[in-house]
Amino acid sequence: MDSIPILTLKRLPKYLETLYQLKKTGIRTVTATKIAVFTDVHMTQVRKDLAYTGVVGTPKVGHRIDDLINAIEQCLNWNDVSSCFLVGVGHLGKALMGYSELSRKGLRIIAAFDAKPEATGSYLHGIPIYGMDKFTNLLSRLHVHIGIITTPAEAAQEVANLMVENGVIAIWNFTPVKLELPTEIIVENIDMSASLAVLSRRVAEKLYNTAPRDLI
Amino acid sequence: MDSIPILTLKRLPKYLETLYQLKKTGIRTVTATKIAVFTDVHMTQVRKDLAYTGVVGTPKVGHRIDDLINAIEQCLNWNDVSSCFLVGVGHLGKALMGYSELSRKGLRIIAAFDAKPEATGSYLHGIPIYGMDKFTNLLSRLHVHIGIITTPAEAAQEVANLMVENGVIAIWNFTPVKLELPTEIIVENIDMSASLAVLSRRVAEKLYNTAPRDLI
Repeated sequence: MDSIPILTLKRLPKYLETLYQLKKTGIRTVTATKIAVFTDVHMTQVRKDLAYTGVVGTPKVGHRIDDLINAIEQCLNWNDVSSCFLVGVGHLGKALMGYSELSRKGLRIIAAFDAKPEATGSYLHGIPIYGMDKFTNLLSRLHVHIGIITTPAEAAQEVANLMVENGVIAIWNFTPVKLELPTEIIVENIDMSASLAVLSRRVAEKLYNTAPRDLI
Repeated sequence: MDSIPILTLKRLPKYLETLYQLKKTGIRTVTATKIAVFTDVHMTQVRKDLAYTGVVGTPKVGHRIDDLINAIEQCLNWNDVSSCFLVGVGHLGKALMGYSELSRKGLRIIAAFDAKPEATGSYLHGIPIYGMDKFTNLLSRLHVHIGIITTPAEAAQEVANLMVENGVIAIWNFTPVKLELPTEIIVENIDMSASLAVLSRRVAEKLYNTAPRDLI
């Protein structure tokens, strides 16, 4: 399986969204030009990205939408559902456990873990919640390769280490911590704090820079 | 209020996390060098970033941790809590409504809206849920400046337009849609699909490229 550039991978879900929407309207075929218009990506780039999926279009007609959807989903491995463990059943963890979109995109949380004993032994959205004492045992026994970390920041590195020591090869990290891990481990970060920092400051700059002048 | 570079803004929450943790251990002062080690950002960069907060350290001693926390929080406007509206009470929307971390970081969801009538009229985590028919009226009456979009992709642009027409100046967009808005509108995107695309593909590449060889 060839390696696909990271920026291409990040654009493929956008194309997919567009294709799902076009399909709903009853359209059967689409050109790269049309996808470019809808997603605001340059046409040349769309063509290059689609080439990675291995799908071949017909000149002037374009691509069959169903073929393209299949090719991209396969490319992203969203047809195969991978099992994963989640650690940290706080608000964000619970949110992800209930986020049905994940399994549509190839990721199924089969167990959740939390350090606080009061949460353990129960189920949420059909997913069992265990104490951390069961974590390494279940992880290595079930051959789970993907871990989601939604713990408080201070616990993130330790949980990541445990994951990697027990066979996890990819971590989806929702904490603001930059994890220190062997280079072969795949890490994707969703840093809501960084995004919120930019938003809050820009709003403050805008409100403070315009409001006082109105009052003078 | 001066404009702070976006990359600095994105690093400030990382410094904050480190400072919160150091403070817990009872330490009172910290140098930029130490922050650099903990956050894995270059020392020169840490110094530059901290300079934007306006805080001044003592040579050889460094900064008082409390002063630095205050300065960064103020810089990010996390001391002031801004009200915001959320549209799209699906799994992700519900998750954000219950995510207490947000108000610690200056953002309070005061009302949520959904197109499906069955959700409306109820409360979740103390936040009222209204139908979209009440949206523009409440938005303009309450002078809310920030909107969160957690709708399905196909509704995102329309909701964003309604927000901007009724006084919203900043949008936190959790859909994979690239919103088309006037340039003065502040938009921050959290694209979980793009992140998951990278993760899934990299895992597939790794598993398919190593597993078969073991079997030969």
